Amino acid sequence: MNHLTDTIIAPATPQGQSAIAVIRLSGSQAIDITDKIFKGKNLLDAKSHTIHYGWIVDGEKEIDEVMVSVFRAPKTFTTEDSTEISCHGSPQLVQAIISLAIKHGAKSAFPGEFTLRAFLNGRLDLSQAEAVADLIHASSTKSSEIALNQLKGHFSSMLKDLRQELIDFAALIELELDFSEEDVEFAHRGRLKDLIHKIIKVINPLLDSFHWGNSIKEGIPVAIIGAPNAGKSTLLNTILNEEKALVSDIAGTTRDFIEDTLVIDGVMFRFIDTAGIRETSDILEGLGIERSKQKLREAEIVLFISDIHKSVEETIAEFNDLQLTKDQTGVILLNKADTISAAQAEPKTQSIADKSGVKTLLITAKYKETLQPLLSYFSEYIQHHNQAEGTIISNTRHYEALENTKLCLQKVIAGLDSGLSSDFVAMDIREALFHLGSITGEVSTDDLLESIFSKFCIGK
Amino acid sequence: MNHLTDTIIAPATPQGQSAIAVIRLSGSQAIDITDKIFKGKNLLDAKSHTIHYGWIVDGEKEIDEVMVSVFRAPKTFTTEDSTEISCHGSPQLVQAIISLAIKHGAKSAFPGEFTLRAFLNGRLDLSQAEAVADLIHASSTKSSEIALNQLKGHFSSMLKDLRQELIDFAALIELELDFSEEDVEFAHRGRLKDLIHKIIKVINPLLDSFHWGNSIKEGIPVAIIGAPNAGKSTLLNTILNEEKALVSDIAGTTRDFIEDTLVIDGVMFRFIDTAGIRETSDILEGLGIERSKQKLREAEIVLFISDIHKSVEETIAEFNDLQLTKDQTGVILLNKADTISAAQAEPKTQSIADKSGVKTLLITAKYKETLQPLLSYFSEYIQHHNQAEGTIISNTRHYEALENTKLCLQKVIAGLDSGLSSDFVAMDIREALFHLGSITGEVSTDDLLESIFSKFCIGK
Repeated sequence: MNHLTDTIIAPATPQGQSAIAVIRLSGSQAIDITDKIFKGKNLLDAKSHTIHYGWIVDGEKEIDEVMVSVFRAPKTFTTEDSTEISCHGSPQLVQAIISLAIKHGAKSAFPGEFTLRAFLNGRLDLSQAEAVADLIHASSTKSSEIALNQLKGHFSSMLKDLRQELIDFAALIELELDFSEEDVEFAHRGRLKDLIHKIIKVINPLLDSFHWGNSIKEGIPVAIIGAPNAGKSTLLNTILNEEKALVSDIAGTTRDFIEDTLVIDGVMFRFIDTAGIRETSDILEGLGIERSKQKLREAEIVLFISDIHKSVEETIAEFNDLQLTKDQTGVILLNKADTISAAQAEPKTQSIADKSGVKTLLITAKYKETLQPLLSYFSEYIQHHNQAEGTIISNTRHYEALENTKLCLQKVIAGLDSGLSSDFVAMDIREALFHLGSITGEVSTDDLLESIFSKFCIGK
Repeated sequence: MNHLTDTIIAPATPQGQSAIAVIRLSGSQAIDITDKIFKGKNLLDAKSHTIHYGWIVDGEKEIDEVMVSVFRAPKTFTTEDSTEISCHGSPQLVQAIISLAIKHGAKSAFPGEFTLRAFLNGRLDLSQAEAVADLIHASSTKSSEIALNQLKGHFSSMLKDLRQELIDFAALIELELDFSEEDVEFAHRGRLKDLIHKIIKVINPLLDSFHWGNSIKEGIPVAIIGAPNAGKSTLLNTILNEEKALVSDIAGTTRDFIEDTLVIDGVMFRFIDTAGIRETSDILEGLGIERSKQKLREAEIVLFISDIHKSVEETIAEFNDLQLTKDQTGVILLNKADTISAAQAEPKTQSIADKSGVKTLLITAKYKETLQPLLSYFSEYIQHHNQAEGTIISNTRHYEALENTKLCLQKVIAGLDSGLSSDFVAMDIREALFHLGSITGEVSTDDLLESIFSKFCIGK
């Protein structure tokens, strides 16, 4: 990493040919360095949050026609003096301008270094910094909502308040240790227990929210499963092709990205390819099937697609063969409704639903309109899970830290109940404080910072 | 196309996850619409060229934390009121913000529509607008230099001045037509001829510059040719691998892009795959070889790589077999210098050079240091072509328009010399004016504008 005294530079927009590209500088020399390579207004006199037209020049040689934004400390993203050079969107020009600035003293920024500086300079705490990355990578409205809430810092300040209360108690207990000979109790044990119960009561719903939070962040895994030619691909294509037109309204949406994911009511569903479970079961043994079964186990929703012509018993038996866990939701889709009369199909559907106790829908995979009940089902699924009030956590690191905090707090309670001596209680409290503090970065190590910020984009 | 009265919106930065993304609005409602979706300072009061921190909101719901830049007419790119929303670099957020602005009355911009407006509103002429696109797509320092010069408008104003002088003459001649009965001469024929010669004298070096300008824009085509195992691929890899490290200094430079191009002294060289000319000649006939030969003919520089162990006569014969045209430059590379003593190799090299009259270099394709003379040769090649002073044109449309202008002007001269009547002379002058005016867009058709601007990026 660069020293905080360095002025850093990086492209802030993706590589590629486009209308404009933005290059960002931050550090005490940001305005100076930009001014040295800028022909136009004297930037040294420029007010904060103003934009200036001119040319990037290398001595006499003009490199590009640009707009330069000037941001003066401390009201900037990093709290340092910063500039943004908005040049023509050519990778070659971006490179030329960055090289020129580096020649004048700027240092190439490491991934995440701008946000790291915002953290080190106290503008963002660690969980807010992580929210910045989550926001950039958010793939649905709901996931950016969660990241945005985290960025706004409600979650952080709630944790910080609780931690402060716990610190106050810890200080009193540590004080007792100094007077250990005298058997005094500065920290009221009853009030300490109340506080710890209060903290656990805050932590519990956060822990509970993680499963849903993580599903939103990564996409809810949905497996479509069924015999060969049951209509798995047709079903997927029918759902996706229709929706694709909606989500790729704006030119350039990456096809790869939406090929097997679908955003419904702001939440992403991730379709898992399970082609092969049935296909290979007769031919191959062992690893291949194991892998397919693993994929099936990863699914949160399992769509079992079967032919309406199969008997009620066979359909149910095949569904039961899937051996879904209690955390998985199964849906039976009876396909090829168009090849059978409604008078035959409907009672059969009802019978399968009744006997299996599983949501059963009659569809024709190739006709979008017959899939409406399935899409409604996805919407209901979201509504059901969204009902939980309050903050949702979606970050595995936060989840683990909260879980560790809870474990330590439970040890404190157990210690208090069994009359454990103050020094052991103090130790458990300190450990809880460590885990709680690691979320917002009040406690952090270089390794932790490295592992968090190295995953950021360059220029962020 | 949208009407100029619409307010248009588009992303201005490439699609992708990045630190920031920029969305651009232009039109009379740009500030109004942005203000409606912005929580922060009242943008309606904001001064031009200022930046404001706040949130994009849909009613009460916060969409993203952003910076908004406000630009007030007429000192903007399009000359219209404009804003730029700098949001977190998530494709999903960009889409959400654009959809929201569209809900509040903005229209999705067509590719190039911002620049088209700059043209229609008189801020850029057509050749300057084309320079914007050329600048974005410039692949080397030299090609962006040419685009930048064109953007600055020297070329345009030179053409406009000449055209104005010609218009003045044309007006006088048209006046003569009104008095055709009276046999008067308002336009002095001698001065008209002087003017036309002056214009042709300006056009000629521009036409001459096109070949080089186009090579710079598209990359100078270089063919590496030789028998199987002569070392073609090794040569290419040795040159590229070394240089690649230099050009891809900044993370993200597309590998595809530099895989077979190389920028030397700011000029791009484009290596053409001619593998197969020799390989297939014995086996296949017709089309396959024809295609390879076509590629060879496209090359401006042909590197003929041969084994130093071959006889002088055989090497020269094979080189001559390539039948290079006079516009092509050949270089003979004698490979595998490391397998023969210098005492043997050097006289042989000299002998081939002398007998063929072709630049001949002794190399070991796998050792970069032996290729230094070849790289120096590329540098000299550039220097030699860069010697020509003045404006370089690189746009095929400009080249054709200038050629047509010249043809018409030559007809005018011929007409004057043969005493052609004023109305015919006037017609030729009008045609010359048309072609000359089409470059800067003083004369333009919807079709022409459509064909130029539809090739632009969205958001430009």
